[in-house]
Amino acid sequence: MTDFEKQIRFIMELDKLKNVGRQTYLGDASRKENDAEHSWHLALMAFILSDYANERVDVLKAMKMALLHDVIEIDAGDTYAYDDKGNETKRERELKAADRIFGLLPEKQAAEYRQLWDEFEAMETPEAKFVNMLDKVQPILLNDASGGKSWIEHGVKLSQVMARNARTHEGSEELWAYAEGLLEANAEKGLLKKD
Amino acid sequence: MTDFEKQIRFIMELDKLKNVGRQTYLGDASRKENDAEHSWHLALMAFILSDYANERVDVLKAMKMALLHDVIEIDAGDTYAYDDKGNETKRERELKAADRIFGLLPEKQAAEYRQLWDEFEAMETPEAKFVNMLDKVQPILLNDASGGKSWIEHGVKLSQVMARNARTHEGSEELWAYAEGLLEANAEKGLLKKD
Repeated sequence: MTDFEKQIRFIMELDKLKNVGRQTYLGDASRKENDAEHSWHLALMAFILSDYANERVDVLKAMKMALLHDVIEIDAGDTYAYDDKGNETKRERELKAADRIFGLLPEKQAAEYRQLWDEFEAMETPEAKFVNMLDKVQPILLNDASGGKSWIEHGVKLSQVMARNARTHEGSEELWAYAEGLLEANAEKGLLKKD
Repeated sequence: MTDFEKQIRFIMELDKLKNVGRQTYLGDASRKENDAEHSWHLALMAFILSDYANERVDVLKAMKMALLHDVIEIDAGDTYAYDDKGNETKRERELKAADRIFGLLPEKQAAEYRQLWDEFEAMETPEAKFVNMLDKVQPILLNDASGGKSWIEHGVKLSQVMARNARTHEGSEELWAYAEGLLEANAEKGLLKKD
């Protein structure tokens, strides 16, 4: 198989991400979004909001990371943030998926994109912190717009969201402060449970 | 309204692109794709396949262009390629949409992204030719994978597809040659009508 054929195979495999559902509703609450739409939204935010990153970020790298960060869910599925049982086995399932999916590419690209995904997961570099922040803030924006629909469905508590977002500020103090304000306002309205 | 508020407003407005449907089916033929998913797929292809561009492209610019190229369809709707009536009024509807949607942003960003969209439409620069090529090749890949479902539904002729793709090769001779091969194979199978 030529490099070109491997690249086309990877691109067509990624089409499946459009069928991986998330728990977050669109802003108009009409339906839940999927991983491909979510990744598109994150990549847009990565360049529109890059000035708010705590540390200077390589925008191209952050955008690639945003576009690829969920592709492992083609095999591993989307694990809901507050599903404790699912989260126990998540890491193992995702590593196996990364081996298979990035392995569809020519060697050099496979290594480059796998490294980007590993970097995203490790959350140590400026780009990884920034994209992880976007990955947490985007569903808060959508939950706020949809009247907390997903939070209500799952009976999510403010304290759970805060615990899950303990490191979100590392990507952008400004965006996290904004998101935190939305969370508090939603808790006041009773859309997020207080303890 | 602060710049930050304008940026968030734009990002939330763009959420609506997830509800703008296209005529192309996903590769598994389960349903039609939407503009957000399509734009995500194009931005991925923009960096995975950048080596095949005829002219050297600025990958960051091409990715931004891919992510934004359809946002005007939030107002103007998706005009099917072979809908002659819809295509008569398309340009006017899209210009009006571009004014409103990019106008939600702070002035400097509004001008930058509007320029990117105008550039995409004019199809003169290496990035615009490359992203226009991807915008044509991606649905050919999906149509091929889904057994020509959208072509069959609309009774599309090979000659129509070829006419619409007269300039696609300007973005990448290699990718267009591959897509042309798929079109011919699908016409042989009767999934695209021969004249």
